Amino acid sequence: MDVRLEPAVVRGFRFAGVAAGLRNEPGRKDLGVIAADSAVAAAGVFTTNRVKAAPVLVAQARLRRGRLRAVGVNSGSANCFTGKPGLKLAQDSSAALAAALGCAPELVAPCSTGVIGLPYELAKYRAGAEAAVAALAPDGLADFARAIMTTDTHPKVVSATLRLGGKRVTFAGCAKGAGMIEPKMATMLAFIMTDAAVAPGALRQTLRAALPHSFNAITVDGDMSTNDTLLLMASGAAGNAPLEGRDLARFGAAAAAVSAALARELVRDGEGATKLVTVEVRGARSAADADRVARQIANSPLVKTAFFGCDPNFGRILMAVGKAGVAIDLDRIEVALGGIRLASRGALHTAALAEAARRMREREFTLTVDLKLGQSAARIMTCDLSFDYVKINAEYTT
Amino acid sequence: MDVRLEPAVVRGFRFAGVAAGLRNEPGRKDLGVIAADSAVAAAGVFTTNRVKAAPVLVAQARLRRGRLRAVGVNSGSANCFTGKPGLKLAQDSSAALAAALGCAPELVAPCSTGVIGLPYELAKYRAGAEAAVAALAPDGLADFARAIMTTDTHPKVVSATLRLGGKRVTFAGCAKGAGMIEPKMATMLAFIMTDAAVAPGALRQTLRAALPHSFNAITVDGDMSTNDTLLLMASGAAGNAPLEGRDLARFGAAAAAVSAALARELVRDGEGATKLVTVEVRGARSAADADRVARQIANSPLVKTAFFGCDPNFGRILMAVGKAGVAIDLDRIEVALGGIRLASRGALHTAALAEAARRMREREFTLTVDLKLGQSAARIMTCDLSFDYVKINAEYTT
Repeated sequence: MDVRLEPAVVRGFRFAGVAAGLRNEPGRKDLGVIAADSAVAAAGVFTTNRVKAAPVLVAQARLRRGRLRAVGVNSGSANCFTGKPGLKLAQDSSAALAAALGCAPELVAPCSTGVIGLPYELAKYRAGAEAAVAALAPDGLADFARAIMTTDTHPKVVSATLRLGGKRVTFAGCAKGAGMIEPKMATMLAFIMTDAAVAPGALRQTLRAALPHSFNAITVDGDMSTNDTLLLMASGAAGNAPLEGRDLARFGAAAAAVSAALARELVRDGEGATKLVTVEVRGARSAADADRVARQIANSPLVKTAFFGCDPNFGRILMAVGKAGVAIDLDRIEVALGGIRLASRGALHTAALAEAARRMREREFTLTVDLKLGQSAARIMTCDLSFDYVKINAEYTT
Repeated sequence: MDVRLEPAVVRGFRFAGVAAGLRNEPGRKDLGVIAADSAVAAAGVFTTNRVKAAPVLVAQARLRRGRLRAVGVNSGSANCFTGKPGLKLAQDSSAALAAALGCAPELVAPCSTGVIGLPYELAKYRAGAEAAVAALAPDGLADFARAIMTTDTHPKVVSATLRLGGKRVTFAGCAKGAGMIEPKMATMLAFIMTDAAVAPGALRQTLRAALPHSFNAITVDGDMSTNDTLLLMASGAAGNAPLEGRDLARFGAAAAAVSAALARELVRDGEGATKLVTVEVRGARSAADADRVARQIANSPLVKTAFFGCDPNFGRILMAVGKAGVAIDLDRIEVALGGIRLASRGALHTAALAEAARRMREREFTLTVDLKLGQSAARIMTCDLSFDYVKINAEYTT
């Protein structure tokens, strides 16, 4: 099964993205709607930040029953730190969308992304929701993807098709987010739709299983949003028999692959990013050790600026490894950049640095650290820290 | 007692900084020596990074006896990840300095700062050590301070004088370090000399007591060096009676003030820094909670780029608070920037943002977060994240 970087029609779902005037940027799409033809199985995971935006609280409660009819997403305002009025705003917004669709408000999940601390105008949202519902189309995912962007430089959509339970099953996914990204058991805004028939419980398990190697394995700046939301919805329009055993496992693998592809797109479009770097840590004594080392490397400003400068800076990598506080043996550790071994058996290979620097000019490369102490591994995708990250974040108000 | 940003003569100590050719930059001072007239009481703290440079291991062992005659510091090479040859290099280097001074090698502490993974030339060090010993002078601290610089833009020295035990006692301190700074129970290279008479045990306690509010309360980029070393040496030349009770406490307070002033200078000269920001967290349920929140704020790339952009970005501050994972109540939290209250009682004060932005144009300001849940507080000094941080670290090999 191939995951493609393009939208697809997923039977049972329609999409729209409209300019509702929520951002005060005339003509800019800022309200996106996903609508299923009827209530569908849905599962969600949300930010673990102690500060949770109002729409997160509302969506979290609504997902408990495992069914959704629609999702309404606005950009421009995060509707976070907006108190009781913000909570009401999230509820009223999804009620407005529910009214336009003719369904119960409890079947609509609200999502917001943008500036923290400021609300948006309900009247504009209401008019926008009506316009969006009128514009809903099976091939509207690209419009939806554009409407939910903030500092993203381009919309991020992926799709995949496979045969399951004797039927052709399609996935389409969409995500936004370029900064404030180190989700950890949560994510930025991301939505994955499938026409497979899956029970809500199985869908929830599928989503949790897909996380560790997708949205929880990426970082842009080590910062964690207050609005992170990932939803997985299954319309059942494919008409497959209930998924069990091997088919359910294949469904899970497909959902994981789609999640990983979307997560990768988030890092590739990380704020100011010029490079996608996969940090692989192997030979650790435990998975937790491997994960700690990989995250220390992937979040170190000194390592990330060295990526930007195409500098095979072994010292900074070693510094980050040591900072993780896990067991290491300097005589055993092996470090390779873009496949070029920088250090092994306690010695730096200075002759290899020039070739490693050349490999770092690629848009994507892998940094491998083998601790040679055990069997555990971890993999985190990160990007470099460039002038543009500073420029974007010194000038933009989140 | 005032702490001044200038060198002072400390009876019992002499200093030198010479160009030994270790850096291959003709004429650039790269070897500094601190020599006491005879063996003096000394205490040290070192990096907690699991990767420790060879000179750290050697100095750590030598400090156990609480006495030193001299310190030899080279810049250009960190002598870290240099294996057994590196350990021998550190030992041979301090033996060379000991020979030039005519003392036992065990009384000499080696320190190194610079590129990780590469050694320096012992022959050059030996010749440099002889030249430095010949140049030792009571007023040589400024030369020493210059010799130990790497990406620092200027030497950092402080001094203070007070009366203790019936005598005039002087402190002088010197530090280097601009990036790879979040020491945590360690520090970059820093040296504090006093002519007070203090027993080694009391000196060790004094040093540990000074840490939490000085070198352990700063961060530039959240990265932790492999070579962090802080030494406190007391010559006893002031001739005071043994310090006890109230006098020992006053000595401790003075050492803490000198440490804090040096630590502050490190942050002010943080790589690319244009602003020094004191992050104060109050009203936390525990000191650990307060410290976690303060460090999350002080290390957040999004908060630090907002500092650079003079953007009173409340949302990012709130994101960092929530990310710390400690108890918070959004209806109670209060946030102020440069004395201007940005948020309280669950609401953002948009009318205050313009004035807060003005206050952020100062070179120094304070960010205060009051959680209003308890009595505990923490204070961390940090700097902004600027284009120059990226420039320096994309172009310089640590």
